[in-house]
Amino acid sequence: MRCDVLAVGTELLLGQIVDTNSSWLGEHLAMHGFDSLSQVKVGDNIGRITAHLRRMLDEADAVIMCGGLGPTHDDLTREAIAAVMGVELELNEDVADVIRYLFSSRNRTMPENNLRQAMVPVGATVIPQTRGTAPGLICPVTVNTANGPMQRVVYAVPGVPHEMKEMFERGILPDLQQRSGEQWTIASKTLRTWGESESGLNERLDGIIAELDEVGNPTLAFLASGWEGLKVRLTGRAPDANSAAALLEPWEQRIRAILGSQIFGVDHETMESVVLDLLRRRNWTLGVAESVTGGLVTGRLTAIAGASDVVKGGIVSYASEVKFGLLGVSEGPVVTEDAALEMARGVRKVLACDVGLALTGVAGPTEQDGMRPGTLFASVVFPDESGLGEQVAHLRLPGDRDTMRQLAVISALDLVRRHLIA
Amino acid sequence: MRCDVLAVGTELLLGQIVDTNSSWLGEHLAMHGFDSLSQVKVGDNIGRITAHLRRMLDEADAVIMCGGLGPTHDDLTREAIAAVMGVELELNEDVADVIRYLFSSRNRTMPENNLRQAMVPVGATVIPQTRGTAPGLICPVTVNTANGPMQRVVYAVPGVPHEMKEMFERGILPDLQQRSGEQWTIASKTLRTWGESESGLNERLDGIIAELDEVGNPTLAFLASGWEGLKVRLTGRAPDANSAAALLEPWEQRIRAILGSQIFGVDHETMESVVLDLLRRRNWTLGVAESVTGGLVTGRLTAIAGASDVVKGGIVSYASEVKFGLLGVSEGPVVTEDAALEMARGVRKVLACDVGLALTGVAGPTEQDGMRPGTLFASVVFPDESGLGEQVAHLRLPGDRDTMRQLAVISALDLVRRHLIA
Repeated sequence: MRCDVLAVGTELLLGQIVDTNSSWLGEHLAMHGFDSLSQVKVGDNIGRITAHLRRMLDEADAVIMCGGLGPTHDDLTREAIAAVMGVELELNEDVADVIRYLFSSRNRTMPENNLRQAMVPVGATVIPQTRGTAPGLICPVTVNTANGPMQRVVYAVPGVPHEMKEMFERGILPDLQQRSGEQWTIASKTLRTWGESESGLNERLDGIIAELDEVGNPTLAFLASGWEGLKVRLTGRAPDANSAAALLEPWEQRIRAILGSQIFGVDHETMESVVLDLLRRRNWTLGVAESVTGGLVTGRLTAIAGASDVVKGGIVSYASEVKFGLLGVSEGPVVTEDAALEMARGVRKVLACDVGLALTGVAGPTEQDGMRPGTLFASVVFPDESGLGEQVAHLRLPGDRDTMRQLAVISALDLVRRHLIA
Repeated sequence: MRCDVLAVGTELLLGQIVDTNSSWLGEHLAMHGFDSLSQVKVGDNIGRITAHLRRMLDEADAVIMCGGLGPTHDDLTREAIAAVMGVELELNEDVADVIRYLFSSRNRTMPENNLRQAMVPVGATVIPQTRGTAPGLICPVTVNTANGPMQRVVYAVPGVPHEMKEMFERGILPDLQQRSGEQWTIASKTLRTWGESESGLNERLDGIIAELDEVGNPTLAFLASGWEGLKVRLTGRAPDANSAAALLEPWEQRIRAILGSQIFGVDHETMESVVLDLLRRRNWTLGVAESVTGGLVTGRLTAIAGASDVVKGGIVSYASEVKFGLLGVSEGPVVTEDAALEMARGVRKVLACDVGLALTGVAGPTEQDGMRPGTLFASVVFPDESGLGEQVAHLRLPGDRDTMRQLAVISALDLVRRHLIA
């Protein structure tokens, strides 16, 4: 079954807002076995919206329209659908009551145009609003195609991403599944990897990819996540949740056997959440001394609620004198293995924590201490009794200043992780 | 003149990559006076690409195609254009030489399929590649419309954003301007504001907006930039650069008269670059003590190359004991005005810098020291002799943990800025 997407809004064409809704819908439709073969952006113009909708219904079994459901005269999605259905709009009293209540409960006067949002094409079903004021719509349409009259369906949802997503899950997906007659349960598992390019992973997983291509279920996708490494996602379909999960299991094990510790986490885990968990499990606290990354390592670790039981803090020793004075680094060049090691020892001592992590390097655009941009020295010092010792890594990272710094953050955290799981 | 956009790639429909190219093109086309009324995403399927291109050429004078110019059999943009032009593809030896050279100069063997990128529809002009291996194309097409045969043009550029943008500026825009016969020079000026909502700004600039609507040139647009405040952009068209700039000048002055110090910078300036410049002008160094933001303030300041002459470093005093021990904060609750002030004094002393900035607060999701999530105390301590004194601000910020922290960063930097320009 094919379900295309029509995003409505002049602001999308002018680049004032990037249309992320159709990408999200495309991803989720694919996960549930629906094809989305064309996605269109059109401005707030009734003629063009209607023309695009008609054309899309020639080919697609269903079209999801995002946006254009607000209260102003620019919001024309309802009118366009009614025109294509060949029906009038009528006031839906239940929807109108909800809108009136939303205003009165906030002690606000409802501008009369808000009732435009309660206008519904005759014959359409409402997806009740739970967050915003506009409901979604499910609109059956009969269209004349080259193969005779065909039943199609148009869904309309607000353009606000969280309202759109919630209505998709609650209203659109069940309806699509019912119409297609195929109600699969989807399970997916994302293996998050760090340290190898997409072509490298592709090569190593060559055999598995070929087998999966033949099997068809589950499927495997690589998702590039920029500075966050590469995701390897398995998605399986089955009649129920347990069978869907069971379908993934043997493939996950085979991938893990090949990629090993390159897989740093699954699904919503991040490099920083994994490192925090590993430290927490040992009851260890962490202090970070940063030069080249200027605070980004602690910034990312503390983005996680509850980081405070692990992260005691950090020293951003951007100026060399802070390295020498506060951290006790030996005077001399500061982009060296020794400087990184002394910074890690220093921050461990100054902040009185179990583990000290340090980063010194060159983000560019110019050289420092004769070292080229991209140079990173990262060091981690573990408690004496742990036997994990003092570690230093020398890396050469690619990219501009920003990219280098972000790669430095995740590389340094990965250094800690690899020693903790060794 | 109308120029629509066709983005090609199955990965765009599957949501593996968000199509930001068409938004960028829409924005830049509009700035130069071209309409982009429909933007379409389609997968790597020759039939569908060709069908969409034909349809789009029915209505648009020009279509820019992004993506599908690579070397693999999935890259079908060249074939689709040739089909619509009704011509063959032929090997362009100049392009082929460049591709061969790119490989040999890197001591790599060129896979034969790379020469696919040198195949050009007969009658097309090449936009030479400067970054990637694929050139862009300018392809004149005659199409039969309801109004008889019409001259159209199809542009093809790679999907890699920086290659696409560079070819747009160098190859597409000049060609479009020549075809349209209207070669305006565009000047634009972006005033960056902090501290007021879009509706608030709208209300205060009400009169100016109404006048500009009537005048039509220059135009004014608000661009929401999330955590970075709101941009107010003036864009004017004139026959030459000086007249275009002169067109903006009086309107900029009127807006500045209304918004005053809410405007923190122009064009590519950021809050952090402005604060660094203000400090640099006084020859002052800065140290930052961060709790709630965990290093994000120094992280952002040091994202700017050359920050090292101002930023000495920072202390991320995430654990209270680091505040008490290293920074000399009095033992007791740490989310208070006094704690912020003592942190700023402490970091100024420990890092021996001229200005100390400190942030303490609650990012959530839970309360701390009886203070609700969103609470921020920011303090800045200036040199005694400056007469700028010791400043503390108590703010209540909205949003989830991440949003609150990002808003805290820019709010604290704005505090420094406001006292430096006072």
